[in-house]
Amino acid sequence: MERQTNIAVFGLGSMGMGLAKSLLRAGHRVHGFDLNPDAVARFAGEGGAPGQVTDIAAELDAVMVVVLNAAQTESVLFGQSGIAEMLKPGAVIIACATVAPQFARAMEARAQKLGLHYLDAPISGGAAKAAQGELTIMASGTPDAFAAADAALDATAQKLFRLGDCAGPGSAMKAVNQLLAGVHIAAAAEAVTFGMTQGVEPEQTLEVISQCAGSSWMFENRVPHIVDADYTPRSSVNIWPKDLGIVLDIAKEARFSAPLAAAALQQFLAAAGSGHGDEDDAAVAKVYARNAGLELP
Amino acid sequence: MERQTNIAVFGLGSMGMGLAKSLLRAGHRVHGFDLNPDAVARFAGEGGAPGQVTDIAAELDAVMVVVLNAAQTESVLFGQSGIAEMLKPGAVIIACATVAPQFARAMEARAQKLGLHYLDAPISGGAAKAAQGELTIMASGTPDAFAAADAALDATAQKLFRLGDCAGPGSAMKAVNQLLAGVHIAAAAEAVTFGMTQGVEPEQTLEVISQCAGSSWMFENRVPHIVDADYTPRSSVNIWPKDLGIVLDIAKEARFSAPLAAAALQQFLAAAGSGHGDEDDAAVAKVYARNAGLELP
Repeated sequence: MERQTNIAVFGLGSMGMGLAKSLLRAGHRVHGFDLNPDAVARFAGEGGAPGQVTDIAAELDAVMVVVLNAAQTESVLFGQSGIAEMLKPGAVIIACATVAPQFARAMEARAQKLGLHYLDAPISGGAAKAAQGELTIMASGTPDAFAAADAALDATAQKLFRLGDCAGPGSAMKAVNQLLAGVHIAAAAEAVTFGMTQGVEPEQTLEVISQCAGSSWMFENRVPHIVDADYTPRSSVNIWPKDLGIVLDIAKEARFSAPLAAAALQQFLAAAGSGHGDEDDAAVAKVYARNAGLELP
Repeated sequence: MERQTNIAVFGLGSMGMGLAKSLLRAGHRVHGFDLNPDAVARFAGEGGAPGQVTDIAAELDAVMVVVLNAAQTESVLFGQSGIAEMLKPGAVIIACATVAPQFARAMEARAQKLGLHYLDAPISGGAAKAAQGELTIMASGTPDAFAAADAALDATAQKLFRLGDCAGPGSAMKAVNQLLAGVHIAAAAEAVTFGMTQGVEPEQTLEVISQCAGSSWMFENRVPHIVDADYTPRSSVNIWPKDLGIVLDIAKEARFSAPLAAAALQQFLAAAGSGHGDEDDAAVAKVYARNAGLELP
């Protein structure tokens, strides 16, 4: 590391916490904030820097916003006691939530009016990669925004894609990824349970299909959860009504027909509606199993 | 190779031809048959053994049936001048077409009545792998059927899965694979064109998503065809109404709801119906593009 950077991370969920710790490990001064005081205390125990937002905001070089959605992003930045107005000119906002490209552009415009840089920087890779500082980041923003975010990106990304010189393309690519990821999880669940109706056990499907043309990153990652009957949420069912909702909202605005994303969304809605929203997203298999009278492992 | 085996291959399309040549390379005596005389002549030129079916059938140790579907499989085996009745007892039929598990069981029963072995042996991997003798074979059948098919499997399969001791499980697993493969091809086309509506070029989607959680075997294999605007059929659109049709037929019999497979089938039907049936299956992207007023590369 060339120099110590003063960074605040907003949102200490599984992704934000991992990311904040990676920043600490790289030698930065890192403040962690979350609505949940337990998460804040836990991060302070890991070496997080002390202080209230109002006290430390003017010293920050970078703010990483690792919250759930657009509404929370806007609230952190521009809500009542939002941080944007407290930052010094030249500081950079690194926005990591999955949001619509248009929302990212609107946030960038408001940040720039305050003399701030804005990086549209959705992340991919899951909690384990976040903890290791090995995320994939799909980023877009001005060259100045990239330069200002450099130290933070270095500490958290294994793979950084530079997708354009304004906000928007980063979020667009993330939406493309989420369309595929959501469809692939539902398809994996559909295939495993379909196989069961044909006398093929989930474990056998996992073993064989992983080595066939029908495989996907999500198939290999999620089907073991079904085989092991382990629905501890690494990524929960509730993520998908949100993310496939964003995909279908911006698809609708573009008059784009996306029948597979739409079908996958219905399966996740059924999973959430029948009480599995907080389980691992592989629990979408429970909808298929229930509909077909099957008993999962 | 321990001993030379006398084998006939029925169906010299891209898969059958590659498979027949792999058998030749392994030192076997191989007869090739096809309704297309050009294909037969081409294979004879490669070293295929001469002779009419009626003349050579009694000498055969194994018959590989690499035709398009169940109807052609039944015709080759049990149709007018079908080969099954001409084979010597103890010969093995290796059936490679994608068919319903129930059909495979019916064929096995008829073969066994004639004292023949039957291996339910669908293949996966595409024409290139077939030519290299590196297919994945999802096989099921009696131990005697596997033993009789050993030399032929050795010469053609890189990966042989033994999925059960009767016909059926092989075809069931192939159906699971085709459900996923078909959904993933349509999803790849949906994602690439959706990205275009958000200002992301197909080439950029290919580069980024290949390294993200949204990737799949089919995404990495087919999206380059879209990026290169190369719709030379390695595997054609017309395969999918057939194979997803089998999936949905046996799903319906099991009262299994498969919304993603159903949605994917509609997209392939639209591709076939609008004149792209004989193109590479990546041409399903043309349906999405036309529906959204997009111009593909």
